[in-house]
Amino acid sequence: MSTTPATAGDLAELDTGTLFGALEDPALNSMNFLNEVAIHYPEAIPLAAGRPSEEFFELEDVHRYLRIFSEHLGRRLTEAQVRRTVLQYGRTKGIIHELVAENLRLDEDISVDPESVVVTAGCQEAMFLVLRALRADERDVLLAVSPTYVGLTGAARLVDLPVRPVRTGEHGIDLEDLVAVIRRERAAGRRPRACYVVPDFANPSGLSLDLATRRRLLEVAAAEDVLLIEDNPYGLFHGDADRVPTLKALDAARRVVYLGSFAKSVLPGARVGYVVADQRVSGADGTTGLFADQLSKIKSMLTVNTSPIAQAVVGGKLLAHGCRLAGATAPERRLYDRNLRRLVTGLAERFPPGSDVTWTVPTGGFFVVVTVPFAVDDRLLERSARDYGVLWTPMGHFYDGVTAVRALRLSCSAVSVDQIDRGLDRLAALINDRSGRSAGTIGHGHLADSARGEP
Amino acid sequence: MSTTPATAGDLAELDTGTLFGALEDPALNSMNFLNEVAIHYPEAIPLAAGRPSEEFFELEDVHRYLRIFSEHLGRRLTEAQVRRTVLQYGRTKGIIHELVAENLRLDEDISVDPESVVVTAGCQEAMFLVLRALRADERDVLLAVSPTYVGLTGAARLVDLPVRPVRTGEHGIDLEDLVAVIRRERAAGRRPRACYVVPDFANPSGLSLDLATRRRLLEVAAAEDVLLIEDNPYGLFHGDADRVPTLKALDAARRVVYLGSFAKSVLPGARVGYVVADQRVSGADGTTGLFADQLSKIKSMLTVNTSPIAQAVVGGKLLAHGCRLAGATAPERRLYDRNLRRLVTGLAERFPPGSDVTWTVPTGGFFVVVTVPFAVDDRLLERSARDYGVLWTPMGHFYDGVTAVRALRLSCSAVSVDQIDRGLDRLAALINDRSGRSAGTIGHGHLADSARGEP
Repeated sequence: MSTTPATAGDLAELDTGTLFGALEDPALNSMNFLNEVAIHYPEAIPLAAGRPSEEFFELEDVHRYLRIFSEHLGRRLTEAQVRRTVLQYGRTKGIIHELVAENLRLDEDISVDPESVVVTAGCQEAMFLVLRALRADERDVLLAVSPTYVGLTGAARLVDLPVRPVRTGEHGIDLEDLVAVIRRERAAGRRPRACYVVPDFANPSGLSLDLATRRRLLEVAAAEDVLLIEDNPYGLFHGDADRVPTLKALDAARRVVYLGSFAKSVLPGARVGYVVADQRVSGADGTTGLFADQLSKIKSMLTVNTSPIAQAVVGGKLLAHGCRLAGATAPERRLYDRNLRRLVTGLAERFPPGSDVTWTVPTGGFFVVVTVPFAVDDRLLERSARDYGVLWTPMGHFYDGVTAVRALRLSCSAVSVDQIDRGLDRLAALINDRSGRSAGTIGHGHLADSARGEP
Repeated sequence: MSTTPATAGDLAELDTGTLFGALEDPALNSMNFLNEVAIHYPEAIPLAAGRPSEEFFELEDVHRYLRIFSEHLGRRLTEAQVRRTVLQYGRTKGIIHELVAENLRLDEDISVDPESVVVTAGCQEAMFLVLRALRADERDVLLAVSPTYVGLTGAARLVDLPVRPVRTGEHGIDLEDLVAVIRRERAAGRRPRACYVVPDFANPSGLSLDLATRRRLLEVAAAEDVLLIEDNPYGLFHGDADRVPTLKALDAARRVVYLGSFAKSVLPGARVGYVVADQRVSGADGTTGLFADQLSKIKSMLTVNTSPIAQAVVGGKLLAHGCRLAGATAPERRLYDRNLRRLVTGLAERFPPGSDVTWTVPTGGFFVVVTVPFAVDDRLLERSARDYGVLWTPMGHFYDGVTAVRALRLSCSAVSVDQIDRGLDRLAALINDRSGRSAGTIGHGHLADSARGEP
């Protein structure tokens, strides 16, 4: 509120200067800005959206999964108990924890006590719970492989937890830099609590950690006594390469807090994710308990419990496939793999060897990062949307600051191959115009005019 | 993490001393403790639970509401767009905001722009969003009518926002005390941002504010320049008394942030609530926007968006009843009214005039507060559950401290009239034993033995 005294009848007015400071932070405005551009230019080809393909969405699936889950419950509960479980307030940590634990055992070779699972209102809430629990005072800091998913940075802002970048390096995380950052922070009197990492097909880089790097990361985390927060939304979409074990599967020492999502493997609209927090927590009174139970206390004051109706939808899909989603999502895996190859091949066709445009070549996931010879900012994105008809994400959004970066992120998850081809033509036109090259030099015409106003 | 250096292979251990301090706070442990007692003594009669009656729960309703909502969307959207709306990621502020605004207009005579509505993962998330936005630094404090809903206190803890109690007084809020607390806080260099109030059938007191008090409260809030946070989960359950307008309906000056819940009027398992935040916010750059849009930024980093599947369930019920829930919930209103009368009558029968046991006599809602001549704490609740077979809530949970209070809360929403009668018999036995009176003096036998082990 303003501090000027008001008289009865005045309109209440608020001033951002007296509200939570992070509301002005780029991290909290990132999602809104990107959404607004997409809404404002609906005809632009969305190589920005990290949402899953809608090709496999069926409204009837929601009904079917709900029925499968209710029938499953009905095998050991009375009808009244089934109704209560799905429709009433319920267990804070969730009602599908056993199915989640079984899924982790079958798909990920991760063995955890279901009691260490907290089912959350999307994986975003899981991030918030973990960061809120770990942030005790102003000495605490979080480390994160940079560039970093903006949702992690945003959640950290909500609890006033600074995020210190760790370099990606050649192996998806530069372990020497990790150690250096930890020691520098400790020397300055701060407490590095954990390092956030997406080991499989990271958002935004698309890069993965190889097995040796994963093992060494676990050793470094133990030696330096920090937790690892492993976020794994894309692991199932590994193209035709073999999967590498998750950090949690390799974690014999409960060093890893594991974040899971069903947004891409079941339905985003369920908004169901989870966190595995099997660390032991000792209290001042000598008792010990699970870190999951501390997270549960926070959740009870944040969202009470995750909608059991939404959980039932996810539980039904898990049951329909014997708790194995790796097989159940094979069609999605093939679609994303096809799109990713088309994207990478398409970039190679448009920017031949020797070009000053380069890009990452991930083996799975949704994202490719393109490095260009000029600064990429939000204004350029708006120009791209308006004049060239193609959307992408300025990489600056994934750095903890406002600096323009000479790179942009492309996503191939929510588009057709035809859209990828046309989107890349438009992107190439933009890049060539911006680089001051004639479009003709690489054999593609300027598509801005034809793009404008296209449905 | 402990600060002792660990070697690779050691188990990671956490220590509550290095975690978020509020995890040890009574407010965050309240829900867990009360749930645990209930789970441990399933045979005890639950006069503690504030959950809605399950008498009207039907699994088929979920399917029916989903279909109604999808068909409604289908009238102006393509099939693909309907699937996207219900199953994909979506608008942060929600997809049923127009239906919510229409419901507020019809049921509450509240007129608001749908853009000022943020649909949330239960009303608890709405509380968190508002408190997070209002808490800028350590000077900020929140006021709340005391005794206070523990979920409000818990949400305030998550953002380190102190809660200052305001006396209930004779009219549901002591306005002189409100002014005194605001001025005392300001004199101490703090910023009172808002006062939290449940004007209709408050949890836990059961008390309501009359119309004159509501009008005066709005005047005081304007004169003292604080917001009011109005929480209205029980307004529809007003027995056979007339409804009094909500603060928001009387609010011509956008002084009230309104919190709504569909947990009691549709289904708790949907976990759908909302906040109306129509205040104007001016930015440093001279632009103005809605407070709802600031809350939306926080939500985007907390839960991204509320499950559109869950929103569709609520939207379907709204559509099925022309957006009027007052009529649609008349059967619930009659059931709660019947139970509340039985509870109050039953107390009068067991504690005749002149007794040192007194209680509130609400005209609606779920709760009655019983004042007794001895301190009521968690240990007494456990004894009551074990030896007397009846559950209730120690009023200490609704005060911002750990002091035992000479009062307990009874709830009548999730029990039958027979359970109310038997529960009151058991409670009377406990009270009489604890007061050192012979049970015979009020004509009821000791029921502890018969209660034990009863299903």
